[in-house]
Order: sequence, then structure tokens, then C-alpha cells
Amino acid sequence: MKVIVIGGVAAGPKIASKIIRNCPEAEVTIVEKGEFLSYAGCGLPYYISGEVKEQKELMATAVGTVRDSVFFQNVKNVKVLNHTTATKIDRKNKKVIVKSKDSIESSLDYDKLALATGANPVKPPIPGINLKNIYSLHGVEDAEGIKEKLSQHKAIDAVIVGGGLIGVEVAEAITESGGRVTIVEMLPQILPMLDPEIAVLVEKHFEAKGVRIMTSTKVMGFEGKDEVQKVTTDKETLNADIVILAIGVRPNVTLAASAGLEIGKTGAIKVSSQMQTSDPDIYAAGDCVECQNRITGKPCFVPLGSTANKQGRVVANNICDNNDSFPGVIGSSVCKVFDFVVARTGLGEKEARDAGYDVVTCLAPAPDKAHFMSTMKPLLLKLIADRKSRKLLGAQATGPGVADKRIDVAATAISAGMTVDDVANLDLSYAPPFAPAMDNIITAANVIRNKIDGLMDGITSAEVKTKMDNNEDCVLLDVRSPAEFEQMRIEPCVHIPLGKLRNNFDKLPKDKEIITFCKISLRGYEAALILRNAGFKNVKVMDGGLLMWPYDKIME
Amino acid sequence: MKVIVIGGVAAGPKIASKIIRNCPEAEVTIVEKGEFLSYAGCGLPYYISGEVKEQKELMATAVGTVRDSVFFQNVKNVKVLNHTTATKIDRKNKKVIVKSKDSIESSLDYDKLALATGANPVKPPIPGINLKNIYSLHGVEDAEGIKEKLSQHKAIDAVIVGGGLIGVEVAEAITESGGRVTIVEMLPQILPMLDPEIAVLVEKHFEAKGVRIMTSTKVMGFEGKDEVQKVTTDKETLNADIVILAIGVRPNVTLAASAGLEIGKTGAIKVSSQMQTSDPDIYAAGDCVECQNRITGKPCFVPLGSTANKQGRVVANNICDNNDSFPGVIGSSVCKVFDFVVARTGLGEKEARDAGYDVVTCLAPAPDKAHFMSTMKPLLLKLIADRKSRKLLGAQATGPGVADKRIDVAATAISAGMTVDDVANLDLSYAPPFAPAMDNIITAANVIRNKIDGLMDGITSAEVKTKMDNNEDCVLLDVRSPAEFEQMRIEPCVHIPLGKLRNNFDKLPKDKEIITFCKISLRGYEAALILRNAGFKNVKVMDGGLLMWPYDKIME
Repeated sequence: MKVIVIGGVAAGPKIASKIIRNCPEAEVTIVEKGEFLSYAGCGLPYYISGEVKEQKELMATAVGTVRDSVFFQNVKNVKVLNHTTATKIDRKNKKVIVKSKDSIESSLDYDKLALATGANPVKPPIPGINLKNIYSLHGVEDAEGIKEKLSQHKAIDAVIVGGGLIGVEVAEAITESGGRVTIVEMLPQILPMLDPEIAVLVEKHFEAKGVRIMTSTKVMGFEGKDEVQKVTTDKETLNADIVILAIGVRPNVTLAASAGLEIGKTGAIKVSSQMQTSDPDIYAAGDCVECQNRITGKPCFVPLGSTANKQGRVVANNICDNNDSFPGVIGSSVCKVFDFVVARTGLGEKEARDAGYDVVTCLAPAPDKAHFMSTMKPLLLKLIADRKSRKLLGAQATGPGVADKRIDVAATAISAGMTVDDVANLDLSYAPPFAPAMDNIITAANVIRNKIDGLMDGITSAEVKTKMDNNEDCVLLDVRSPAEFEQMRIEPCVHIPLGKLRNNFDKLPKDKEIITFCKISLRGYEAALILRNAGFKNVKVMDGGLLMWPYDKIME
Repeated sequence: MKVIVIGGVAAGPKIASKIIRNCPEAEVTIVEKGEFLSYAGCGLPYYISGEVKEQKELMATAVGTVRDSVFFQNVKNVKVLNHTTATKIDRKNKKVIVKSKDSIESSLDYDKLALATGANPVKPPIPGINLKNIYSLHGVEDAEGIKEKLSQHKAIDAVIVGGGLIGVEVAEAITESGGRVTIVEMLPQILPMLDPEIAVLVEKHFEAKGVRIMTSTKVMGFEGKDEVQKVTTDKETLNADIVILAIGVRPNVTLAASAGLEIGKTGAIKVSSQMQTSDPDIYAAGDCVECQNRITGKPCFVPLGSTANKQGRVVANNICDNNDSFPGVIGSSVCKVFDFVVARTGLGEKEARDAGYDVVTCLAPAPDKAHFMSTMKPLLLKLIADRKSRKLLGAQATGPGVADKRIDVAATAISAGMTVDDVANLDLSYAPPFAPAMDNIITAANVIRNKIDGLMDGITSAEVKTKMDNNEDCVLLDVRSPAEFEQMRIEPCVHIPLGKLRNNFDKLPKDKEIITFCKISLRGYEAALILRNAGFKNVKVMDGGLLMWPYDKIME
């Protein structure tokens, strides 16, 4: 069996290696247009920051073996044609036409073909886009260019166009290397996979670290003579010694499309759950294919190295007649933003509403370990669930605390179709250095259960702000201690510490809406229950408490 | 509705608070024999080590409010009788007889009764057990005694009897405070919830930190005049300025048993999944009750604060006629041992075999983050699965890496009844600072799939050692690089680096068993596949590679 694999970065080498493991007699050839094989593209921001010292570490296995052509030939028995471009697929005769470095064309026969052609960074036709020192972060060469510039003088002005995952990671890397960074994002928030109230916390953390965030801002052009010097936006003009384009990537489907393979709605190659294209002898995997969202069943384009690896295995198994299928993704992602972890999985709040769910959410800020441990750090966890089925649909978390653990548990629970009741009863590992006795995700699941069961009526800080701005006739009730109140508060509000609430009902109007809160709204919840029981009919709890209030506060 | 809750540490306060939230008109009284309410018993080792500075932090809420009787009365509207012992339950007349500090008896009526009487440390009738400075770590008073002793002179000799979770945590705490610690354990290993090859790694780490581990050792007596001075064992006599008994706890069922409530096989109170005892008006939760193992359906006794909280909620919901049930536990636990995290969930290998499963396991040592990150730490993950159903049954992890995240994902997957195929396709969050592109649990699940699908035949290091000791006619094949081989190796073995294997088949006998390995046995797996394909019939891969070889090695 002759197998040709086009693309040698992530999915490609995985497909090739796994085929050889399954069917050692197969003849497998990887065609790669660049020099490098199997390098960790997602490590590039850490190469820029200096966290990764040498380029070759990104290309080595965990035990330090560099995965070059010789390695693939000797160890894996896979032939590698690097510096070689596949120019055409002749499906009828089952041939791939390739062109070598020195432009010599040849043709390779295949029984099965696997496409792992990846994705290319979006490079919009903005004036000046071809000036020097404007980079995408797509390959080792880009990273080298950025490092070179940073090594010349540290305090460079860097403008990052696009506030997605890559933009955010590069912003941190350049800031840590001494650069002054501005992120310019066209949308009203950075990290569009996050719900707005989570994204705003990340933006504030960036600003605290000296990174300027310009949202709802459009880049109009790049100026400079030979090298970029300025970035013009619809708001102002920014100095720029260097520009990183991180607007996103587009699946590289040229070869597939010209061969007449079906392209999906997202613009990526359409594949079955067996990772088979519309031609049964051609498979595809990685950043060039369309995935299915496991929750909604809808096609999506979420290029990630972790997904590429899983899909590669499925391709190899099916090529070797070991039936295997890829169940799709649920949109899990994580990134580090200085001292914050930012992670999410499943459907966001709006996505869930758009998909027709009766959405109920909660914002649970809590310590990520037993609150008495000095290693404890705050973590904000948002859960999104369906009122009717009680199923968990999504989770988002940020803060200095351990977010990725809770998001991975949520990802597992969502994949299994668990309800919030199931999640609340999970037997998660507990000891004070690792979690509170009630893990953050269990507490959050219980808040959702309370809401669904009618024990609690939540209101978001954004809704409260609107009421305040419109001078609506409601009472904001702060039930924190006097010391906490002195230190920081929002006004106008009524302040009655929780312990004194039962003796002060006369200070509150029975006929008005009362919105209770405390630091995190746990005492706020207790207060709402006390008031309800005392005959107050219209009581709501502000989600996430003062900790999640993103607007002005009066500080001591 | 009058509700009496007996016990005020973990489950009790939870039951009381949740009842008031559900039914604010209920009259709830907590009867607690000690002074303290709702303190975090699991924080005591960290109070000893000084990580927790003040006793009251263990009694405070996350925002620093101390949960004393006044707090419960004012905030929760729960009456607290502390320094009060419940002496008898009169089920016929629905009364609890209590005795106050000054021995005054009285009787309290109840409509519903909840028992949260906890557990007591086992105190075996060993000669000298009542000498001074022999402590259990059961309450704040014990912790104070130990701290006092440590403050007198730091370099005390401490003997810890019992190598379970509490013994291990206290061993770390006393060592960090300057004490010299010996753990004496009757069983052949510490931490009996771990499989032996995982426990041995923890023992080695303890020894590297200066803690002496004596397994298979029985304490015969304590000697000293007034204060303990020596611990005699069946092996040798140990100096001891202080002794911590950490042999385990027994459920406190005296009250329940004398009231004729059904006691389970484990010696704990038998409850339904609604947490109802054999008397429909009496519920129980926390360390005094028997749980059900969700995987085997068998009763078990696993006292943990995290479980107590969940059960407390179920009790309160059912008392308030909101039908709720507790699904049981799967034996998740985690502890910190100096630089190691030790965590486990589900069934251990032996437990799984005893339960009748066709067990397949893997040992996967791997970096816990992308291997090129300087923050990366090694982690060993063991998975236990059922060959027939392909279901994940258990997981254990240890090392400096992030073990708790993978164990919590495994706990969620096991609760959902996921197969290893499901686990291998989980969309877990990925970025280099948090995980390898293929998360450790995904890699491990793939190894199990390979084994079940006949691609790989594993052999444990213990089995290999037995073969070597018996001079069995097999070949141990080390496929690491020459540099790695020079540094450390086991003998006798044949050394052929993986890249040269295809040209050196003649150095290996086709008719003998060949056992391949490398550092972690990934290259070992590649080697086995190459040999199989070359016609070698009897090839096995040593699980976990040299990293998991716990016996003698030849070091450079």
C-alpha cells in the first residue's frame, strides 16, 4: 500500500507514523514544502519570549531527538520529501504532482492520500501590508524575525493586530521581552471565544501589565519607508517598530479545491467522522479540515494542534482498515496571560441562546484551593447550562487560580452529556493544597441548580448598571461587613451587614425590587433567602458580587 | 418543622444551613460536643507546618467570617448547642437526650433528625499508648499539642504510626518544621489506595527528603516515663519525642447503633441513596456513614470532607421534601508529598481484578506540559481499564507534574462510564504552558487502546525483574541513545539505538522473548513494532521504561 501524506507539521507526521505502526509494510511518503518537519508551531510565542531557548527544542521529541528527515526515515521508515510542493492531485490516475526546490516536477502514485495542508495566516489587503517588520506568527522564520528585532533594541513599540489566542500570546511574549505592546482588535472585545464579562477581566489584566488594548478599532493602513513605522487606525495613529498580524488563519484548501474535493461552509475541507473527504481514497486532518461541534452538531473551524493529533490517528486507522472515527470538538481552549489563566469549553452564553437552549448561567468567584492555604488564588468560573435538560453546555474561567483543571473537567462532563446535578456530585480529588472541599465547579453547578430550582433569581452586573443609569426604582443592598464597605463600595446602595439583616427589615421597602450582593454574592444569596422569607417578593442576587463589578467603584 | 442535627464539623453545618435556605421556617438546632463548629479538619497538617498561621483561619469562611454559634444564629438562623453531647435517641417519642457541659440533661423534640457524628481515630490497645506526646490528628487540640512540642525544640524525633493520607501529610508538615520523621507502616507499602509501583515512587521521594519509611513493620509498644521516649517495633526500637497515631478512623456510630439504626458491613451507618437511615425520620451524612462505590456498587467507608459536603446537601433537600440522591463515590483522593503530587481515582489494579474485570493497564511517564517549556515537570500516569467493555476503571498519578488535573478528568470520565476511546478523543484545553498537545491522559488512553487492539504487549518492571532473577532466557533490549545509555542502564541488556535497529536485526535472536524499553518506552514501543514486522514473534514492551524501573541501575 502506497500512502502519500501532504504536509509535515502536526497532523501529517502523526498520520505517517501511525500508519507504519498499524501496517509496517506500507510505503509512506511525506511531502512538505518547508524545511522543517513536525515542529511545535504553538511554541513560537515561547521561543520569542525566551522561555524556549533554542529553535531546535520545538522540533525535538520529549527526549531531545530532533525529528528531521533522517529521523523519520530511520526510526519511522517514512520517506520525507521536504522543500517539495504538491501542485496537483490527479484523482483519476491516483497521482500527486510535486515540484522540488529546484522546480523539477515529478509524480507520485498513491493508493491512499492524506491531506494535512494546514492553514495560512490571514493577510488582508491593507495599504502598506508588505512593509518590512510586519510579521504573521506562522513559522519559525517569523519568530526569528521578531526575536532579531527585539534583540536590536528592547523597548520597541509593537502593534498586534488581532486579539485572538495568538495575538494574546505574542503580546505577553513581547511585553516580557521589554517591548511596549498595543493590541488593536476590530471587535468590541479581545478573545472572541469568551463571554464579554470574562473578556473584560482579561483586558483589565493586560492593562495592569502595561499592554494597551484598543477594541472596536480598525486598522486602516501601515506607514513607513521600507520598514513599518506607524499603524493608522480609525481612532488614532500608533508608532510601530514591529507589527504582528494575528487576525486568524484560513484553511489551506487550494490543492483540495482544485482537485474538486468538497469544501465545507466554513471554507475548510469537508470530511466525514472517519476523516474521509468526498473522495473515499483521500483523507484529511488538522488545520485544513472542518470539524463538527459535538454539542450543536454544526460544522466549525477550530484549528488546534491537539485536535490535529487526534484526527491524524483516526486517518491512519481508517487508511489501515481499522475503523475509527473522530467525534468532533467542543471548542476547548486555554491561554496564559501574564498571571492569569484564561480557559473555556463548550458553548458560550450567546452561542447557547443562538442554538435555542433555555440558558441559565452563573458566575462563581472563589478561591481555587482551600481558602486558608497561602498558595490559594482567586478564580472566576462561569457555567452555562440548559434549564430544560439541566445539561452543562459550557464553562469559562479566568483569574490567577487554576482554571485549566476546572475547564478540562467541564469539557469531559459536557462530552459525556452530564447534567449540572451530575457535575455537582462528581467525586473530584480533594486536599487543601489542590481544591476547596467543594471544588469551584461543584459550587458553581450547585448555584445553577439553585437557579433552575427557583431558589435564586440572578441578575448580571450589566443589567444592574443599566437599571442604575436609568434611575430605575430598585434598591441595591450590600450585605458585607462595615470594614469591607469602607474599603470599596458602589453607590447609591443600602448597606446592612448580613448578620444584622433580620433586625433591619424596616429599612427596606417591601414593594420595590431589591438586588442583594456581597463580595462574591454568597452572603448576597443568604440575604435574598432571608428577605424572601420575610415577605419581600422581588429579590434578586447580583451574579459574582462586587468582585465581578467591572464599572466604577468608590475606593477608600 | 423541628430538625435536630447532631455534629457540627462538616456535614452538620452544611445540613443545617441548606435546610434553612430551602425551608426558612424550619427550626434547626445543631448539637455539637466540642467548642468549635465548622472547622476545616483537613487543614490541620497545614496549621502544624505553619502554612496556616492562625487557628481561626480554619474556622473562617472564605471572606474571613468566623463561623461560631453567634454567626450561625444571626446569619443562618440556626441554633447551636455546643459543649453539648447527644446521649440517646428516643425514636418512639422522636426526642434526643442531650447533656450540657455542666452535665445537665435535657430532651429535644424533632420531626427530622440528621446524624453527622463523624469518625474517631483508631487508638489500638498497644502498651504505653496513653503516654504523653502521643497524638492523633483529630482536632485543633491535637494540632496545638504538636505545634507546642515543635516550638520547644525543632529537631525532634517524630514517629508516625500509619502511612495513610493523614500520616503522609503530617510527615511532610513535621519535616518542614524541622523534625526528623519516621513513618512506621504495617502493610508492605505506604498509601494503600495506590498500586504498589506508584507507592514505591512516593516512598523514594520521602526518603530523598529525609523521611525514613519502615513498611511491613509493626509497632509493639511505646516506652517512656510520663512522656513517650521510644517506640518499639518488631524490627527495631526508635527514639521518639512525639508520636502521631494515624492508623485510620472509625465511624462514630455509638448513638446510631444504640438507637437500633442499621449499621453496614463497613461498620458505618447504612443509608439509602437519599441518605436516609433505616428510620425514615433519621438521616445521616459525612464520616459516620457508609458510601457506595459507583463502579462496583459495593459499600465502602471513605471519610472525606468533600463527600460530607455533598451528602449534607442531599440530606437537607430530602428533609425539605426536595427529592435528591447521592450517587456514591469512586475513591478519588490527592495529597501533596513535598515536591510530588499523588492522586488516584476509581479502582486500583488489584481492586479491578478482584471485581472480576479483564484488566489492562498502562504506565505513561510524560512531561505534564509541552516538553519545551521550562515549567514542564514529569508526571507518571497509570490507567486501569476493562478489556471487554473498554471502559476506564481507574487512574493513578504521581510525580512533580500536575497530577490532580488528570485525575479529576479521569474521575469525571469514570463517573460517566467513558471508554478509553472516549477519553482519547476528549477535547481538553491545550496550550504549551498547560499540557502537551496530546494530554497525558489522552496518550495513556491511546496506549491502552493499542494494548487492547493487540498492537502492543506490555510487561511490568516487576515481571522483568523476576525473569532476570530467575535467569530466564530472554533479551532485554535498550533502544536509547548511546549518551543516555552511558549515563544510566540496567544489565544484562542488549543496547541498539532505535535509529540503528533496522540494520541490526542479526544481533537479536528470533526464537527468544525480547523485551524492549527506552526512557519512557515510547521508543521501546516503536522498536517492538519494528521487530514484530521483521518476524520476531515474541516481543514485549516494558511499561514505563527505565523511568519506572524501581530496582538497581548502573549509573555513570
